Amino acid sequence: MFDLIALDADDTLWHNMDGYFAITEKYKRILSRFASPKIIEDTLNETEHRNIPYYGYGIKSFILSCAEAALTITNGRLTSKEMEKILDLGKEMVNAEIELLGHVPEVVRTLAEKYPLMLLTKGDLLDQERKLDRSGLASCFKYVEIVSNKNPEDYAAILERYNLPPERFLMVGNSLRSDVLPVVAIGGQAVHIPYATTWVHELVHPEEAAANHYHELESIQLLPAWLIEIGA
Amino acid sequence: MFDLIALDADDTLWHNMDGYFAITEKYKRILSRFASPKIIEDTLNETEHRNIPYYGYGIKSFILSCAEAALTITNGRLTSKEMEKILDLGKEMVNAEIELLGHVPEVVRTLAEKYPLMLLTKGDLLDQERKLDRSGLASCFKYVEIVSNKNPEDYAAILERYNLPPERFLMVGNSLRSDVLPVVAIGGQAVHIPYATTWVHELVHPEEAAANHYHELESIQLLPAWLIEIGA
Repeated sequence: MFDLIALDADDTLWHNMDGYFAITEKYKRILSRFASPKIIEDTLNETEHRNIPYYGYGIKSFILSCAEAALTITNGRLTSKEMEKILDLGKEMVNAEIELLGHVPEVVRTLAEKYPLMLLTKGDLLDQERKLDRSGLASCFKYVEIVSNKNPEDYAAILERYNLPPERFLMVGNSLRSDVLPVVAIGGQAVHIPYATTWVHELVHPEEAAANHYHELESIQLLPAWLIEIGA
Repeated sequence: MFDLIALDADDTLWHNMDGYFAITEKYKRILSRFASPKIIEDTLNETEHRNIPYYGYGIKSFILSCAEAALTITNGRLTSKEMEKILDLGKEMVNAEIELLGHVPEVVRTLAEKYPLMLLTKGDLLDQERKLDRSGLASCFKYVEIVSNKNPEDYAAILERYNLPPERFLMVGNSLRSDVLPVVAIGGQAVHIPYATTWVHELVHPEEAAANHYHELESIQLLPAWLIEIGA
């Protein structure tokens, strides 16, 4: 039924947002003498959002936004020592241990026995490759595609490159906006596995979701049984 | 003779290092009250080199190193205004017009009529995609591969993915270290087209080059005639 199953990585296979939240807390502590946590967080979010067209997604983009927002927040009073601490947060993130979500190793290994798997993720090239290496799951993935965007045309380009009819392609991920809706839009199938929290830039209008058809599972643990159930 | 011709992008199809040089000059001017141009440049180079394992290649990585090196150079005396100017350099680079090298459009179009072409480049995903878009050459490339490294195993992985025997693969680029030697090492063919200057991180030991076999052309303009000459 499926010629290929593609899995998103961040917050589908391993924790990602938690790392950003933890670093944002440290960032707020570094700047606590200048502004309230809310002002710091709002300024950082606005800066990040404004910088996505320039810098895209990933750790480097995030830290550049942290540095820029710090200048805005502190209005000329930031010390070099504080800026150094902010830049060090980036290296801390790059070096962070990877933490797989529950049941991921056994599910990925089970799927890999039956289907060609693709890791299909957005973000920074080097960073995602490093995380895949550290995950211990690299050998389960026949293909790895790290993309700068996950719009319908990005999925269409990948399917064309791999000669895959959309109806024989299944995408699995935690983001409606990135993993589910664009795939459904080009005639592919998608499984949504929500993460505990949802990134502010990933929010989807409820009506947008309601108008589309996709499958939702509470945990990746349920994926192999669901595939058997639908006869895939 | 060749099933696929792959072309490097930065300083093979379009100017890249010149942009880094120009920005480095601006960076030196921003910091001129703190240190000599030589000390600024050396500190920046060391910082960049040390950060490659963390951040890889590309504009974001470069600007993060610029920010970090500025803290080292100024020893606590950098103002927020100066840091802001440094961070703005990144956006200036992202927005820079692309400047194609001489004869590139006609050569790429000529080659595309006869061979499937691949753009095979190192660097930041979003940034390279943006440059390809702006180059007006995107439609000439059947495949685009943006990679974090160009070691022999990286080339081998690409050839395997595309089912290409190495002897039927030709790589064309300006860097011996990245475009030529690793391809020759896995049995592929490579054409070296030197750029006017050579990036400090790309230097190759002369004996390493002498021990290998590759073709050298003075300009990409000569590539179509060379292909005819060798009967490809």
